Amino acid sequence: MDEFARLDTGRPARTGQPEVVYAEPKTPAQVAACVRGLLAAEGTAPVMATRCSPEQAAAVPEADYDPVDRLLVARSRPVDAGRGHIEVVCAGTGDLPVAAEAAGTLTAFGVSCATLVDVGVAGIDRVLSHRDRLAAADVVITVAGMEAALPSVVAGLIPAPVVAVPTSVGYGATFEGLSALLGALTSCAPGVAVVNIDSGFGAAMVALRVMRVAR
Amino acid sequence: MDEFARLDTGRPARTGQPEVVYAEPKTPAQVAACVRGLLAAEGTAPVMATRCSPEQAAAVPEADYDPVDRLLVARSRPVDAGRGHIEVVCAGTGDLPVAAEAAGTLTAFGVSCATLVDVGVAGIDRVLSHRDRLAAADVVITVAGMEAALPSVVAGLIPAPVVAVPTSVGYGATFEGLSALLGALTSCAPGVAVVNIDSGFGAAMVALRVMRVAR
Amino acid sequence: MDEFARLDTGRPARTGQPEVVYAEPKTPAQVAACVRGLLAAEGTAPVMATRCSPEQAAAVPEADYDPVDRLLVARSRPVDAGRGHIEVVCAGTGDLPVAAEAAGTLTAFGVSCATLVDVGVAGIDRVLSHRDRLAAADVVITVAGMEAALPSVVAGLIPAPVVAVPTSVGYGATFEGLSALLGALTSCAPGVAVVNIDSGFGAAMVALRVMRVAR
Amino acid sequence: MDEFARLDTGRPARTGQPEVVYAEPKTPAQVAACVRGLLAAEGTAPVMATRCSPEQAAAVPEADYDPVDRLLVARSRPVDAGRGHIEVVCAGTGDLPVAAEAAGTLTAFGVSCATLVDVGVAGIDRVLSHRDRLAAADVVITVAGMEAALPSVVAGLIPAPVVAVPTSVGYGATFEGLSALLGALTSCAPGVAVVNIDSGFGAAMVALRVMRVAR
Amino acid sequence: MDEFARLDTGRPARTGQPEVVYAEPKTPAQVAACVRGLLAAEGTAPVMATRCSPEQAAAVPEADYDPVDRLLVARSRPVDAGRGHIEVVCAGTGDLPVAAEAAGTLTAFGVSCATLVDVGVAGIDRVLSHRDRLAAADVVITVAGMEAALPSVVAGLIPAPVVAVPTSVGYGATFEGLSALLGALTSCAPGVAVVNIDSGFGAAMVALRVMRVAR
Amino acid sequence: MDEFARLDTGRPARTGQPEVVYAEPKTPAQVAACVRGLLAAEGTAPVMATRCSPEQAAAVPEADYDPVDRLLVARSRPVDAGRGHIEVVCAGTGDLPVAAEAAGTLTAFGVSCATLVDVGVAGIDRVLSHRDRLAAADVVITVAGMEAALPSVVAGLIPAPVVAVPTSVGYGATFEGLSALLGALTSCAPGVAVVNIDSGFGAAMVALRVMRVAR
Amino acid sequence: MDEFARLDTGRPARTGQPEVVYAEPKTPAQVAACVRGLLAAEGTAPVMATRCSPEQAAAVPEADYDPVDRLLVARSRPVDAGRGHIEVVCAGTGDLPVAAEAAGTLTAFGVSCATLVDVGVAGIDRVLSHRDRLAAADVVITVAGMEAALPSVVAGLIPAPVVAVPTSVGYGATFEGLSALLGALTSCAPGVAVVNIDSGFGAAMVALRVMRVAR
Amino acid sequence: MDEFARLDTGRPARTGQPEVVYAEPKTPAQVAACVRGLLAAEGTAPVMATRCSPEQAAAVPEADYDPVDRLLVARSRPVDAGRGHIEVVCAGTGDLPVAAEAAGTLTAFGVSCATLVDVGVAGIDRVLSHRDRLAAADVVITVAGMEAALPSVVAGLIPAPVVAVPTSVGYGATFEGLSALLGALTSCAPGVAVVNIDSGFGAAMVALRVMRVAR
Repeated sequence: MDEFARLDTGRPARTGQPEVVYAEPKTPAQVAACVRGLLAAEGTAPVMATRCSPEQAAAVPEADYDPVDRLLVARSRPVDAGRGHIEVVCAGTGDLPVAAEAAGTLTAFGVSCATLVDVGVAGIDRVLSHRDRLAAADVVITVAGMEAALPSVVAGLIPAPVVAVPTSVGYGATFEGLSALLGALTSCAPGVAVVNIDSGFGAAMVALRVMRVAR
Repeated sequence: MDEFARLDTGRPARTGQPEVVYAEPKTPAQVAACVRGLLAAEGTAPVMATRCSPEQAAAVPEADYDPVDRLLVARSRPVDAGRGHIEVVCAGTGDLPVAAEAAGTLTAFGVSCATLVDVGVAGIDRVLSHRDRLAAADVVITVAGMEAALPSVVAGLIPAPVVAVPTSVGYGATFEGLSALLGALTSCAPGVAVVNIDSGFGAAMVALRVMRVAR
Repeated sequence: MDEFARLDTGRPARTGQPEVVYAEPKTPAQVAACVRGLLAAEGTAPVMATRCSPEQAAAVPEADYDPVDRLLVARSRPVDAGRGHIEVVCAGTGDLPVAAEAAGTLTAFGVSCATLVDVGVAGIDRVLSHRDRLAAADVVITVAGMEAALPSVVAGLIPAPVVAVPTSVGYGATFEGLSALLGALTSCAPGVAVVNIDSGFGAAMVALRVMRVAR
Repeated sequence: MDEFARLDTGRPARTGQPEVVYAEPKTPAQVAACVRGLLAAEGTAPVMATRCSPEQAAAVPEADYDPVDRLLVARSRPVDAGRGHIEVVCAGTGDLPVAAEAAGTLTAFGVSCATLVDVGVAGIDRVLSHRDRLAAADVVITVAGMEAALPSVVAGLIPAPVVAVPTSVGYGATFEGLSALLGALTSCAPGVAVVNIDSGFGAAMVALRVMRVAR
Repeated sequence: MDEFARLDTGRPARTGQPEVVYAEPKTPAQVAACVRGLLAAEGTAPVMATRCSPEQAAAVPEADYDPVDRLLVARSRPVDAGRGHIEVVCAGTGDLPVAAEAAGTLTAFGVSCATLVDVGVAGIDRVLSHRDRLAAADVVITVAGMEAALPSVVAGLIPAPVVAVPTSVGYGATFEGLSALLGALTSCAPGVAVVNIDSGFGAAMVALRVMRVAR
Repeated sequence: MDEFARLDTGRPARTGQPEVVYAEPKTPAQVAACVRGLLAAEGTAPVMATRCSPEQAAAVPEADYDPVDRLLVARSRPVDAGRGHIEVVCAGTGDLPVAAEAAGTLTAFGVSCATLVDVGVAGIDRVLSHRDRLAAADVVITVAGMEAALPSVVAGLIPAPVVAVPTSVGYGATFEGLSALLGALTSCAPGVAVVNIDSGFGAAMVALRVMRVAR
Repeated sequence: MDEFARLDTGRPARTGQPEVVYAEPKTPAQVAACVRGLLAAEGTAPVMATRCSPEQAAAVPEADYDPVDRLLVARSRPVDAGRGHIEVVCAGTGDLPVAAEAAGTLTAFGVSCATLVDVGVAGIDRVLSHRDRLAAADVVITVAGMEAALPSVVAGLIPAPVVAVPTSVGYGATFEGLSALLGALTSCAPGVAVVNIDSGFGAAMVALRVMRVAR
Repeated sequence: MDEFARLDTGRPARTGQPEVVYAEPKTPAQVAACVRGLLAAEGTAPVMATRCSPEQAAAVPEADYDPVDRLLVARSRPVDAGRGHIEVVCAGTGDLPVAAEAAGTLTAFGVSCATLVDVGVAGIDRVLSHRDRLAAADVVITVAGMEAALPSVVAGLIPAPVVAVPTSVGYGATFEGLSALLGALTSCAPGVAVVNIDSGFGAAMVALRVMRVAR
């Protein structure tokens, strides 16, 4: 088997988003070949890989790598604040790597974003004190594990789309993110859009579709 | 088999709480015999049955029955407000029967309680506007289905014990109360005590133990 | 308990969306009181209830009711096609009631939408033949049960946000919508926003946030 | 992102309990910064972190650390036996670390407690022989994995609140604590308050709320 | 398809137990044909059907039927107390139908048995007061739902085999018998033999194998 | 919405199989319209609907209906034994409706098949006595609930493809077919092909693909 | 906490079985103390620990240890073949460690047993060829993972009690022993007694109760 | 225990397929003994082991080993293209090891096959561009994780049997392959045959039965 990937280079034309490499199940050599193939094939679209280990990143030394968000960015777009602004809101410090994956992806795609950290609902005044800032965003991404009450509270406060990322932070009855996933899906606040557990990347992609700035 | 129940009449002396009849899986005749047996055996302790159908209640016409909370109360204790006060807080109208089961049980046991209805976190100002009232309670019982964010928000606001009853209200990914149960168990606000799904009775029993007023 | 609902009349100002009554767990009298309370309290915002039974609807004869989508609409907004257009895409005939709930909600809120029925991926040409129509939509809502392959295929074809509603249609290993829910959440096409099983209403609310037309 | 935590220093005033650092998902530097931030911000409240690894503890050498209960205690309150007494009851030796987390937290908060070890119900006389001691406690915390029969037996013997911590001890059909969790939630003895699997800390927080001694 | 059952008439010779008809998924005519086929084919072995509805029973008027245990007994064996004795112990009144299925099956097979009702562990003295009686049995069958603590307590008291039948009595986190099933499987008392949820019949069959009296 | 189905009339050309109507979630009028649409559109291909209720069948009086297998057959193909032969093997009488759905579908498509009933592995000689008959089949479909041991035993005896249909027959730990589904998927006999729980139709479709006789 | 175990030395008198140390969640020092405490306290009863790691075993050098069955045996009873005989039957080579735990425990308790290996039902003749040997046993313990068809086949062949140990051998849909557990619980052959996943020890304990030879 | 495996050397005669060694739970010495036993016992049938680690492979140096597909092949059959052709279709690069297990097994058994890589449905044109190639195959094996939409799309395009292997690639709500497994089982395209998660070997065995070329 001398070929392992069939790059979908027509994707930007169809969906406005280039293909992004999902590094986790690939060998370092496969990651490098995918990233370089995309760099070669496309004009100015961002080129990046997600959930990348340091070993995989070392195979593509020409790209930027951050071990916290695990993003490998080989080509990014300059941030253009005129196109709108996204807030990434994070319930606890443990949710930071997932929030960073969302923020890092948005930044690589040239979208302005900011991160609000550790505003879990156990101290509800923390999130309420940012009410105006959240209400001004074009999209808000909430990143929260455990009972994931944050998207419900935020969606009740603002008119913009709320994208909820459940995280696997916690132990016992969190069941690796299940509690947060079910919580986000059954939010009593209507209009919460849910993505996969720990998928900061997925939330960023939903936000990009909403803002249509990914072209 | 000519005998179907072995009443635990020593329970008040041991635990401060008399046995309460769990009517659901019993025949009407069995419910009637249990209730009358407890009435005969004990001095002044409350005598009641939970999750009672109208058919079962009809077999004990001398007792009070409410088809909403499904409690059958054959002997109750006068409410003594001097012993403290409990707030039962309910996220949505659909949670009312469970909240009523908690409140009805407390009342039958002579404990002062009040119910605050439809203060779900999607409109966070509703619960915040009752902050002082909640902070003054000796125990707060939260009754909430779906993502069950209410106990987290309440426990972050007050010093008293918070007893969370997850409910089976909702559809789809609520999975008959699982979402609310996992949410309550993994609350980011420390000190939430959880009872079984839909068990307003169980929450009342925890509250009674806390207040030691059940004797 | 002489009061059972605390209407959140400040919600339009905060979120751009009025409160919508979730009828399922309420008595007919409660549904009627909620709907009439909202009619009285708000200026021109739509007033409606979801998952309404014929018995509940009969308690509010002044409102429109459709037994298929189970929506009770007491006040709607005229549709304004200038504000954009949404496509609701439905995998099978069995998914129609959920699709109708989404479409009916959008229509009541004054948003232009159309429904494309029975374009499941087992006959992939059916959905491909509507490629241009889907690519022109501002938001696409997919409604699909069983393995829920539809959102993945659609999201790979268009740049707009794709909101996936998993449905409980099917038997056996669908486990009442679990198969479709997990499928939508783990879609290989990035940027799919998922809502609760069978929640056409939830999908409409996400779409309304995206389009900011609900005020 | 130059900031990773927003300490909730108003919490003691609201809830009577200071914020406690959940160390597990944090880097050693983040744990150290949180602990030191709390030490700086608050007067006399206890300062501690839970589920701390030796590596994390090494970053805060000025605090006490115990590798069994994994608590890092930077400031504690002297124990005042006059405020009541709590018994922590442990079904098996394997449950000891969780019991120690509960006891260590109570001690750091200045509450008198004692631990009764290895009194599982397979030898029911072991727990019965401590009947009087348990009946004298203000709160009893049970720590038990597998089928978690202990809270049911204890709650049937005493009038005080019983807080059940299910543990993940065991293998096979314990499913990492699920058997014990479901057992505690469905206890036939009314009035059992349940917390998350393995959360000795959570049980201590419930007990502190019950005793209102955490200020 | 003119034939729907292939009676296993060689079973008594192989296993000491005749085939017993599982009525639930069969039509009344199928139940009748199976029962009559077994009556015709075998010498003196008991002939019976389990989980039989009144409608099914009406199709075999020559057999005895009890709507509580749902057993249809067409031929039974006289009870011979000399062959040993079995105790069926039942945690709550709601577990009685399952206990009756076990006892009725044993009786039909000619085995001496007695039933001890409503001895749940919330009042542990109830079961302890029967310690000697239980210790004298050749096999003890425990029938308990919810947390199913009974088999653990009983197995810690006696030397005989303990067969645990988890029941689906209860609501919420019992998840239709799952809590009791997991509890019985993970009992801390070694030597508990578990059968299917609600299967009083299955427990009787295990007991019969233990006593080898079914021939 | 004046249109509810988009018949996939190109399917026979692509897959060799015409579309079959899944009646369960449709109204009687929708079933009738789909069946008649297919009758009109296609030359000689079979036209049928599965999981049809008597009410739905009454809307298409020109078609044949059997309330046991719930198939509605509007046009069938004559059986041609020269094209091979399929055996449908059924573990218990309760599995008969699912087996009948498989056999009825095969017959409607003109494939020779026979059904072997009640050969569960508890009496292993029953299935072994048909060893030669099974070994001569071109495909064997096993239909079994509970622990679903039948496909493992059969696949170990014959060289032909074995298609396993897990059924939902049983109670308790069968969890509505989950036990049989997991059993079939993890069969120790290699080469078992599994379809959805209770899907006799699905098994027939796999068999038809294997035999390529559906055109 | 200077004490970590409360040995239940009265257990042999009550149940005929001494306490056995469950080593897995204990430190090596705790294992050593428990084993030595039992050696000191009891006359002639076997003293042993289960699920012991090499590190734990090294702390008790005076005892025998086998890294395959992970049993640490400090005192055993001579095997007395006159008391009956048990067969341990093992579906695959991967199930051997669990079978060895059962056999090793029986041997330590002085019971005669033999092991039959790799007789999975995919080659049904392998188990059938041992029909007479199995029929002669007093108890048969089956050890099988995956679909666990073995207990059904064996229980259909012999009159003795069949104790089924589901194992976690396999991958994918075995879900760490769940497939085998559900299979054993729902066996179509009546009279199968089930113990916890991978618990060869539990099966031995059931067998010892059956044979009453453990004193 | 001096014997650990009972080779089923009669299997080729019964099923047309020799026994294949499942290496994962065996020691290297056991793997070597099994492989050599099969080499000795059988004439010309392929001899191989699956899910083999490098350590296990090192114990059989005379056999070929590939660390990607983890197959150890000691004797293979020359590929005979005249017997038909199988396509193995793989949704993503991460699914390659499972696809390679299927292809490697087919090749060892002398069956012609080819692999089509990275044709996930997010870029539907990739799979559509191979429509003719797929339609020409005798069997198509799809290998896909996440939502596993590939088997539905493929089965809607071709007449040949489609064997779906769900894979555990992905994170979060994939729940280790559960999402893909449920997706494949509930495919809206009739006639998909499903095997265990990650079981490329199982799919190959189904394909071999279909083609009857394994003798």
